[in-house]
Amino acid sequence: MEKINLKDKLAKFSEHWTPKIIAEMNDYQFKLVKIKGEFVWHNHSDTDEVFIVIEGSMKIEFKDEIVELNEGEMYVVPKGVEHKPFAEDECKVLLVEPRGIVNTGDAEGELTAANDVWI
Amino acid sequence: MEKINLKDKLAKFSEHWTPKIIAEMNDYQFKLVKIKGEFVWHNHSDTDEVFIVIEGSMKIEFKDEIVELNEGEMYVVPKGVEHKPFAEDECKVLLVEPRGIVNTGDAEGELTAANDVWI
Repeated sequence: MEKINLKDKLAKFSEHWTPKIIAEMNDYQFKLVKIKGEFVWHNHSDTDEVFIVIEGSMKIEFKDEIVELNEGEMYVVPKGVEHKPFAEDECKVLLVEPRGIVNTGDAEGELTAANDVWI
Repeated sequence: MEKINLKDKLAKFSEHWTPKIIAEMNDYQFKLVKIKGEFVWHNHSDTDEVFIVIEGSMKIEFKDEIVELNEGEMYVVPKGVEHKPFAEDECKVLLVEPRGIVNTGDAEGELTAANDVWI
């Protein structure tokens, strides 16, 4: 087992909205993702999902509010809750969720990314 | 659901080796802990455990190696593996592990902390 340096891992890719797995803990995964612009409305019907902002700022739009997250802030999106991530400028995020989760949840489409790419 | 600011939460306590819960995702918990000095050798027989260094530096001693973790680095201690955390100067760490885990694992003693304290 090697230690994992978040900045080193982030330097390994540049594309947006494509989560990369960096670690597994039991049946959960830690993924890094760079986001910019608007994602799609979606939900994950079976699981909560954690966002931790490593660098930059992002927003998560819900049906009844918008949450702004800055560096060093985290948020737990409850399972089944519709949400739409957004970042005006590029934002680097650590996601924590069960193995096998698809980024677009129930809303498969052109932003759906492979869910098994390690870096 | 409120967003969670790690630095704000860290400002709420000063004692060492007493993990504080800040969030739950399904049946997993995110805990902040401040560590300084030497912990006890222990293992968690049923689960992996994730360390993410938020500020400072720490070491995790294993039977066959010592891993040094600096700010922005993480490590997954596999279940059942004996380890001993150590920090020369105070280090602030985010732990991720299943709900109910006791900090000293199989090695209950004077460093065993309550495992249900939220901040």
